[in-house]
Amino acid sequence: MLSTDTKGVFAIAPTPFLPDGSLDEASVDQMTEFYWKAGADGLTILGIMGEAQKLEPEESMQIVRQVIAKADGRPIVVGVSAPGFAAMKRLANEAMEAGAAAVMIAPPSALRTDDQIVGYYAQAIAQIGRDIPFVLQDHPQATGVQITPMVIRRIVDDNPSCVMLKHEDWPGLDKVSQLRDWEDSGDLRHISILCGNGALFLELEMQRGADGAMTGYAFPEMLRDVVDRSLAGDLDGAQDIFDTHLPLLRYEQQPVIGLSVRKYILKKRGAIAHDTLRTPGPKLTDRTRADVDRLLMRLAKFDPRAAI
Amino acid sequence: MLSTDTKGVFAIAPTPFLPDGSLDEASVDQMTEFYWKAGADGLTILGIMGEAQKLEPEESMQIVRQVIAKADGRPIVVGVSAPGFAAMKRLANEAMEAGAAAVMIAPPSALRTDDQIVGYYAQAIAQIGRDIPFVLQDHPQATGVQITPMVIRRIVDDNPSCVMLKHEDWPGLDKVSQLRDWEDSGDLRHISILCGNGALFLELEMQRGADGAMTGYAFPEMLRDVVDRSLAGDLDGAQDIFDTHLPLLRYEQQPVIGLSVRKYILKKRGAIAHDTLRTPGPKLTDRTRADVDRLLMRLAKFDPRAAI
Amino acid sequence: MLSTDTKGVFAIAPTPFLPDGSLDEASVDQMTEFYWKAGADGLTILGIMGEAQKLEPEESMQIVRQVIAKADGRPIVVGVSAPGFAAMKRLANEAMEAGAAAVMIAPPSALRTDDQIVGYYAQAIAQIGRDIPFVLQDHPQATGVQITPMVIRRIVDDNPSCVMLKHEDWPGLDKVSQLRDWEDSGDLRHISILCGNGALFLELEMQRGADGAMTGYAFPEMLRDVVDRSLAGDLDGAQDIFDTHLPLLRYEQQPVIGLSVRKYILKKRGAIAHDTLRTPGPKLTDRTRADVDRLLMRLAKFDPRAAI
Amino acid sequence: MLSTDTKGVFAIAPTPFLPDGSLDEASVDQMTEFYWKAGADGLTILGIMGEAQKLEPEESMQIVRQVIAKADGRPIVVGVSAPGFAAMKRLANEAMEAGAAAVMIAPPSALRTDDQIVGYYAQAIAQIGRDIPFVLQDHPQATGVQITPMVIRRIVDDNPSCVMLKHEDWPGLDKVSQLRDWEDSGDLRHISILCGNGALFLELEMQRGADGAMTGYAFPEMLRDVVDRSLAGDLDGAQDIFDTHLPLLRYEQQPVIGLSVRKYILKKRGAIAHDTLRTPGPKLTDRTRADVDRLLMRLAKFDPRAAI
Repeated sequence: MLSTDTKGVFAIAPTPFLPDGSLDEASVDQMTEFYWKAGADGLTILGIMGEAQKLEPEESMQIVRQVIAKADGRPIVVGVSAPGFAAMKRLANEAMEAGAAAVMIAPPSALRTDDQIVGYYAQAIAQIGRDIPFVLQDHPQATGVQITPMVIRRIVDDNPSCVMLKHEDWPGLDKVSQLRDWEDSGDLRHISILCGNGALFLELEMQRGADGAMTGYAFPEMLRDVVDRSLAGDLDGAQDIFDTHLPLLRYEQQPVIGLSVRKYILKKRGAIAHDTLRTPGPKLTDRTRADVDRLLMRLAKFDPRAAI
Repeated sequence: MLSTDTKGVFAIAPTPFLPDGSLDEASVDQMTEFYWKAGADGLTILGIMGEAQKLEPEESMQIVRQVIAKADGRPIVVGVSAPGFAAMKRLANEAMEAGAAAVMIAPPSALRTDDQIVGYYAQAIAQIGRDIPFVLQDHPQATGVQITPMVIRRIVDDNPSCVMLKHEDWPGLDKVSQLRDWEDSGDLRHISILCGNGALFLELEMQRGADGAMTGYAFPEMLRDVVDRSLAGDLDGAQDIFDTHLPLLRYEQQPVIGLSVRKYILKKRGAIAHDTLRTPGPKLTDRTRADVDRLLMRLAKFDPRAAI
Repeated sequence: MLSTDTKGVFAIAPTPFLPDGSLDEASVDQMTEFYWKAGADGLTILGIMGEAQKLEPEESMQIVRQVIAKADGRPIVVGVSAPGFAAMKRLANEAMEAGAAAVMIAPPSALRTDDQIVGYYAQAIAQIGRDIPFVLQDHPQATGVQITPMVIRRIVDDNPSCVMLKHEDWPGLDKVSQLRDWEDSGDLRHISILCGNGALFLELEMQRGADGAMTGYAFPEMLRDVVDRSLAGDLDGAQDIFDTHLPLLRYEQQPVIGLSVRKYILKKRGAIAHDTLRTPGPKLTDRTRADVDRLLMRLAKFDPRAAI
Repeated sequence: MLSTDTKGVFAIAPTPFLPDGSLDEASVDQMTEFYWKAGADGLTILGIMGEAQKLEPEESMQIVRQVIAKADGRPIVVGVSAPGFAAMKRLANEAMEAGAAAVMIAPPSALRTDDQIVGYYAQAIAQIGRDIPFVLQDHPQATGVQITPMVIRRIVDDNPSCVMLKHEDWPGLDKVSQLRDWEDSGDLRHISILCGNGALFLELEMQRGADGAMTGYAFPEMLRDVVDRSLAGDLDGAQDIFDTHLPLLRYEQQPVIGLSVRKYILKKRGAIAHDTLRTPGPKLTDRTRADVDRLLMRLAKFDPRAAI
């Protein structure tokens, strides 16, 4: 089970598809193994980057079961965000029965006011059950929902089953600091904070008190290194390796085409067999692929794992 | 099958739920009968007002089958909008096999440019199959997607299976006129135009050349009267009856709480057993229900069908 | 000076322009007289409907001075919303020195969270001065900013100079009730609530405890009647006259073209010489003008003031 | 005058304020000199980053005149975006009379459809005059307006006075390529393309055919180096220097606080006396300033100009 003390690297896994758009079950296994070899402590599946909203319910559970079967006890977080609570409840409960470590919930994009957000989580948790550990996903760039530190605090206070914040606000460094300050002053119980937003500020988020990374950058090895060095106090060492990856990471973190870039690299790395996105979705141009190839070649001078 | 010559009144049906949020199958039958008695020519199910995004796939098909079984050959349009084409294709094909007259597709809210919208419909129609008649839903207030008359024209030109526009832009009267002008000048083939947006401008849309109504106002009898009188050329007669309903209609057409108001009235009218919305969703206050009761009482002075 | 006890009808005045887009100073005087004859208790100028954001600072003050000169002591509220506090402070202070009764401030559209909104008003009031009475404009359809009842309460609590809410949320009836409930329970000091949103729900807002109207509907006489009858307890009488105007009112309250419709009617009524909007702005089609003419003719059967 | 053949580096200049929020005229001169020493070919003033919407008209012209007086004939582009055409026309004409090289126009955020955008530029150019060279600013992250390559082509075709695209779409590399492809095939006349978006993809944009940079990164020297090396064909040399700056550049390019970070660095570099933003605006925390100081120290190891 995920806990408030969880630290480390959780990779956000994409969902692999065959060229015809059907689920690529072989690649689900292969990708899961890839992430363990790359040093991930756990996996998060069926998130925004997992094209969850394009999956049928039975496909979602198929992925959950396959990944957990290959997890060897490592924690698997399952995204259960859905327009209706019926679907959320069903997926959350089936996933936990199948052995998931926690579920992750992002707010629907219609929410605007503080009370609407707090109320949404109250309703959602009442629906799925208060015994299921959950991750609060704070990703305004994707959801359009602005969650203040105080709203996070209210959600954490109201819901003992909230064990983790997936932090991907932008700008977001002072938000991490505010939460940790409240912990220090006793105003907020401790929760785990893992950072997303493509890792664009990971090395600095670690300095502000984050516990690790939860994002889909195609080189989880870098996330591993940065998190480990940061937790060990080697800030410049963490930053050094981060900086070598930043030109590529920035390219992968683009809106619209980011997931396509990520799948393209994961395919080159052998993690998945195809870089197909389920339609509707963008396609990479030859020039974009050439950009990625060139950035990989340059990265390989510093990090041999990029020599692919 | 729906055709480009379809005229009349299609009611947008809500999805009835039991107080515990599960599908109220008995009310599905009862509601379908209600609409036929109220004078509807056809029904549109699983739209935005049908809480379609909160339904599980099997529930959606359950509703489709039940409604068609009670339709006695009348045309049933099935909303198939979905974040992914896989789900859209599956629902569209299963619904048509079950006897639906057409499907309805609204653009996803991320679309912005003309080409994105045209391209989306091209992809969607390629996926579901070019032989399935479809309704283009133009509802910017709900989707955030602005579709110009020229984009509608391009979609109609590109897709022979486009038989109808569900028109609910606001303001939208000149849009109807522009499309009809193009038909008159031979620049656009004829399609059916049925009007939504809660019927807030129905009597004027009929004057601009619309073929009828496709909306969920809880008194389809009024839609029937306005459409019939308008098609018969009795514009003032149409307007007279429209005006008596406008105070209530305006109340029902509010954002956020509109569907709750509609279900409350439909329950009072005996169309459905419960006015439950599936969570998350708004709840009516006592004061709001009192407003509706009072507006109904006032309406009953002019239209005895409101005496409930 | 505007006070927390202000009741009645404040017309939102448009800004009259000559056909070449320059300020029509003669019409400013004429329009001001028109509103007094129509029964307005006060005027609100330089609001969203006043095309304030298209005016140069010297033009804004020209209008302020002209209107106040013709006001004969009646209260004039001046919209001072601006992207920067420097401009807001300058206009607010110059307007008050010129004899304005209060200023009105809408939140900028970038605000999202409760604290951002509360903080914005704190900063704005500190800038313009705590001695200037101000109207809080709550108009989410125009600003995109959702203000909860609790946020209004915090702003009222924090700022003694807040004397009035211009209420135009939609749906908004329960918001009025919530604020009045808090007043009744002693949790909120009394403020005046005048209602906008084109008066689409005016008769019901009065029933919920509003003090009057502050909106630009081109027949302020109707607002006068509805407010007077409502305050006198004649709810059905208020509703009767409201209902006769609703078909036209609904037409005028449309997004995008609403102001053009309003200016067209005001020109027909002799309130202004031209129905010009400053560019960029929409233009009415012949068909739209014909709609308005027809709705006016129908209205004239019930209300002879519409016979124009 | 700016021309379709303009290449090089245009710095986007902030507007310097004194701690009390008034215009810091001394810093305007100082900053202008700073940019010339840093290697800028020209300056762009009164843009989004120049807090233009918070300036009074007389302040805007004060800045224009001061900067041009210190420009020694170098081209100065003046942002003239405004809610109304009256203000745009006045500023554009006064700026050109004062010696500006061109004006820059961003679309207002309400625009959605292709025709709305094309029509807006047609109206705007008719207003300001067809003889004034203008820069089309394409910045969806700030404006919310999505401009396709085809819409840019239509604007360029319709308006001979369009000499430059300020490109800051994201993702945007394939957009640059599309425009250059059309130039190669003779479908589009040549225009200059300078790149913004904080330079986050500058080295790759140069590879796609851009002519230079127009952005406000606080080290214009880096922009100079990257543009020069790129134009000379030294792609890896350009990338090498770009990469050393990327950790800081990424920090400066954040939404909300980006301009504050930039002013903080510019103050440290002696370009301006104070890092004040005009209210309302964000303030940097001590931790954020410490982040910037640390990133500057690390950068100084590679680029001695950062040793401040």
